[in-house]
Amino acid sequence: MSEQQQPGTLYVISAPSGAGKTSLVRALVESTPDIAVSVSHTTRPPREGETDGVDYHFTDVATFESMVAEGAFLEHAKVFDNYYGTSRNAALDGVSQGRDVILEIDWQGARQVRESIPQAVGIFILPPSRTVLAERLQGRGQDSAEVIQRRMEAAQAEMAHFEEFDYLVVNDDFDTALSELCSVVTARRLRGEAQRWRHASLLEELLATGP
Amino acid sequence: MSEQQQPGTLYVISAPSGAGKTSLVRALVESTPDIAVSVSHTTRPPREGETDGVDYHFTDVATFESMVAEGAFLEHAKVFDNYYGTSRNAALDGVSQGRDVILEIDWQGARQVRESIPQAVGIFILPPSRTVLAERLQGRGQDSAEVIQRRMEAAQAEMAHFEEFDYLVVNDDFDTALSELCSVVTARRLRGEAQRWRHASLLEELLATGP
Repeated sequence: MSEQQQPGTLYVISAPSGAGKTSLVRALVESTPDIAVSVSHTTRPPREGETDGVDYHFTDVATFESMVAEGAFLEHAKVFDNYYGTSRNAALDGVSQGRDVILEIDWQGARQVRESIPQAVGIFILPPSRTVLAERLQGRGQDSAEVIQRRMEAAQAEMAHFEEFDYLVVNDDFDTALSELCSVVTARRLRGEAQRWRHASLLEELLATGP
Repeated sequence: MSEQQQPGTLYVISAPSGAGKTSLVRALVESTPDIAVSVSHTTRPPREGETDGVDYHFTDVATFESMVAEGAFLEHAKVFDNYYGTSRNAALDGVSQGRDVILEIDWQGARQVRESIPQAVGIFILPPSRTVLAERLQGRGQDSAEVIQRRMEAAQAEMAHFEEFDYLVVNDDFDTALSELCSVVTARRLRGEAQRWRHASLLEELLATGP
């Protein structure tokens, strides 16, 4: 028996705006080997400094719609005039090669993914208080009360779905929340079925009879 | 809704002699709040320096046997002339009060516990190689080859059951193995059903409508 490869884990990480998800996920990926964020497809034009295949897979509407028709997306949505989606290949190629892959999507995308990939692991990130959330949603103080109120309502609509996720992380202290995210990833990798593959040679050696 | 208490987790940690389980568990308990090792019952006499209720609950044979008859033990075994067992109360009082409790028992005890408490979480600790295991089983070099060989066979009989455990930790580097144990405990505490109780007030505040 040689060292073999067990599939990685697909993580779906969701949060309301203002919870600090993007910074936490970036730090998680930087501090952990063999984990990456899946690159989404979008039909919106690239912004200054964005690179195709890195920030997004930029595609035109006809291509996106034909991919939808082919069932190429694990989840997709139209936001204003633009499509966004996670292709099955972008999400699962890494997983099948033994790496962990993160999807940063909202609760609706998370629900779509769960339907296709029930073994996906959901993590929901919460802000530490309503006051902190409200501060973060104010942005640079240049927006009207009405705009900020709409952001709060959107955040609450997202948070209303926290029970659909396997793990809940409260981002009060950044380093604590990061360490908690890392613990979830580490613990998944320690599950017996993953470790049996990873340590197949060791197990064979330890259990061999004879001197 | 006030902050409420969700039950803790019952951990069953097993390992062959020479895997370093006792040191790892001691370090885990020292570095983690709200987790303790359950105190077993035994009929063997206390040794120098052992305290009743701390190292063991020391009982006589008649008491032990009547506890067995009452179903007071989650698991018990006779080793040579002495009984050892984990009482249901010792294991579950802490858990019902929201703390995590560790049972350090062998695969047979683990199997008995799993039958009564299927939600118990099993962790098996492995040595990093056969060579290291053999060295550790040699002790101080005062034992016969036959005695050492018998220890190796006992270790292998224990390790043959690693697949019955949820998590597998290889104790190569002590600090890494400790950090992995801590990750399993942390990740369990981050599960949605635990966090919903722990952060009931926060969730209520975040989801409340109105300003």
